[in-house]
Amino acid sequence: MAVGPATFPEKMHPVSGFKLGTTSAGIKTPGRKDLVLMEVCDGATVAGVFTKNAFCAAPVQICKSHMAEVSPRYLVVNTGNANAGTGEEGFSDAMLTCKEVADLCGSDERAVLPFSTGVIGEKLPVEKIISALPSAKEALSEQGWDAAAEGILTTDTRVKGASLQIEYQGQTITLTGISKGSGMIKPNMATMLGYVATDAKIEKGLLQKLLTETTNCSFNRITVDSDTSTNDSCMLVATGQSSVEVSEQNAELFALFKEALKDLMQQLAHAIVRDGEGATKFVTITVDSAETEEEALRTAFDIAHSPLVKTALFASDPNWGRILAVVGRAGIENLDLDNLQIYLGDVCIVSQGGRDAAYTEEAGQAVMDQEEILIRVVLNRGEVSETVWTTDLSHDYVSINADYRS
Amino acid sequence: MAVGPATFPEKMHPVSGFKLGTTSAGIKTPGRKDLVLMEVCDGATVAGVFTKNAFCAAPVQICKSHMAEVSPRYLVVNTGNANAGTGEEGFSDAMLTCKEVADLCGSDERAVLPFSTGVIGEKLPVEKIISALPSAKEALSEQGWDAAAEGILTTDTRVKGASLQIEYQGQTITLTGISKGSGMIKPNMATMLGYVATDAKIEKGLLQKLLTETTNCSFNRITVDSDTSTNDSCMLVATGQSSVEVSEQNAELFALFKEALKDLMQQLAHAIVRDGEGATKFVTITVDSAETEEEALRTAFDIAHSPLVKTALFASDPNWGRILAVVGRAGIENLDLDNLQIYLGDVCIVSQGGRDAAYTEEAGQAVMDQEEILIRVVLNRGEVSETVWTTDLSHDYVSINADYRS
Repeated sequence: MAVGPATFPEKMHPVSGFKLGTTSAGIKTPGRKDLVLMEVCDGATVAGVFTKNAFCAAPVQICKSHMAEVSPRYLVVNTGNANAGTGEEGFSDAMLTCKEVADLCGSDERAVLPFSTGVIGEKLPVEKIISALPSAKEALSEQGWDAAAEGILTTDTRVKGASLQIEYQGQTITLTGISKGSGMIKPNMATMLGYVATDAKIEKGLLQKLLTETTNCSFNRITVDSDTSTNDSCMLVATGQSSVEVSEQNAELFALFKEALKDLMQQLAHAIVRDGEGATKFVTITVDSAETEEEALRTAFDIAHSPLVKTALFASDPNWGRILAVVGRAGIENLDLDNLQIYLGDVCIVSQGGRDAAYTEEAGQAVMDQEEILIRVVLNRGEVSETVWTTDLSHDYVSINADYRS
Repeated sequence: MAVGPATFPEKMHPVSGFKLGTTSAGIKTPGRKDLVLMEVCDGATVAGVFTKNAFCAAPVQICKSHMAEVSPRYLVVNTGNANAGTGEEGFSDAMLTCKEVADLCGSDERAVLPFSTGVIGEKLPVEKIISALPSAKEALSEQGWDAAAEGILTTDTRVKGASLQIEYQGQTITLTGISKGSGMIKPNMATMLGYVATDAKIEKGLLQKLLTETTNCSFNRITVDSDTSTNDSCMLVATGQSSVEVSEQNAELFALFKEALKDLMQQLAHAIVRDGEGATKFVTITVDSAETEEEALRTAFDIAHSPLVKTALFASDPNWGRILAVVGRAGIENLDLDNLQIYLGDVCIVSQGGRDAAYTEEAGQAVMDQEEILIRVVLNRGEVSETVWTTDLSHDYVSINADYRS
């Protein structure tokens, strides 16, 4: 199940200087694509954001320490096993994978970044991964995006990608990216996995800043089930192979590029929500005119996580009292009930402390019957607006997570 | 569906000076008991705790203002309609109910406290309630607990009550109470509705303190679905009709009484969890040796609210990685992963940053197969321990809340 038409682009524009190779290592399901190797050209810059879960997985720890030492050249991703909650042994297993990639490709092992996603707490089948590495290397190609988009999936039902090009003074800059994620989605730094590459030349510090800022209005604003994964990682690579340099000195190009990157990141993040476990609705929740970002986000996420709101969304039931109850418990200090409004789409449902005088059940029902729904809370307290995206809570969510060990 | 054997006592001891009368007003379902009147004798003391939801219902607002003015003599409870999110009209409707009770019983209208529970946002059918009041008055009796326990239910599948007696120096003190609640359960001051009476004599300030303290280790420690209701209220009445006075001066009796009250309140709170919407498991979550109460409670409630943990509980799947992931995202600063343990029942599942060396899937499965499950997190950071109680997340929870407008 997934919401709306598939959004994977017909054409994933290759990014000069960035190659992807995908193969099957048989980690969980024989024959399934589950191992992706990515090669970054010499001279590229790489930025990353990682989960803030304290129990971050061994590969996440290694990514952070390797990136602090040298510039990354290889990224190796396995699905079917998260290598999280695996203690010392998990750390050694991930390091061994890095060493094998380095030997195979003639690189420094610190220039290899490992990523894992799948079940938590089981030993990484490192021998299977090592055996399949040559085949992944063999497949390395700038055309490898489609296969890689498939190779990083777990419970996802759809591949997720976005690709766009911007023109600047006769030059073309390409941005292409893939992501995965469907359950345990409430990213806090990044989504389960995201890989975005551009051929622009961007200095490392600026690249990291761009990634952090665009993550904060994309992956860090989505939630399926409030559970932050141990393995969230999102990487942004700038190969510099186009002749265009993005820097803050060129304000016009910088703004153009940042907007394009934000657009691409939001496409990838929304694709995860649309493919959220059991999702039948794509729900946008906006909190307007809040006093602080914290207040706006807390209110929006509290609505997004409420099982009662989510089951009403699943039932297409305009049960607006449940939304009102969440706003009331969101801990907003000195909330003036008479001065806030709640909207379902364009329909005002709550004003002056109760049901809006003009509200009709038919109008509410018409919004709820749609597959894409906007819930908007106007607090009339300040200048801050925040938006998050989420799903409903369906029988399929329970089935997927009760029947499958993810 | 409900967890474990029914816990309603065979005998609900009457409390001298406290009468209950139950009838059917036909508010939602014709013939269903849905209106309860309670009469408190002259000279009794009454304490109450109420929801902290900012959108608190009209009856909650009136309870608070009436209690500030005079000592309550009558409590009137309707189910089937919460009279919340109903603005000015809801306030007038609740006030009219108070006035009618006062006229009927020869009392001051400020001595009447109104309570409502049911669907949010629909107009209170106040005429139906007024018409049924004489029949409720007619039924007033100290033996009326059983019928009242039934009369306050909504989506509950079981009546909830507790009753006990303590002996002190040849005297008997009785404590009897009822509660209701099944969904929208994450009380923040009290549960949906709870009414407890004792025949001890207790000064009003002390009674309020006792109620607040015992609520904080009973109703304020349970959650079904993280949603705090707009109508939560819990009342404690001390009729003073026994010859025993409970005061802090008599430390021995005070401790005895407080322990009994805590026991009774926990029985009523647990009965709500056992009857949680769609519940198939009764889950106790204890966080030991935390640095602060806030840290212990946040961790415990984060586990209790995680849809992934709750669906694993429903599936009886010892998927301990999901518990580990929640502890990791609970926002505990400088958490030392190597120095914490997580237990399922008596089985250690996590130690030294990963799966405990002695853990076996069989041992975990044996705990998960039980209907009552203990999850215990030992942080080894400080002296604070907190316990909360919750349910699993089942298909029936989704059905109940997607199919029924509650």
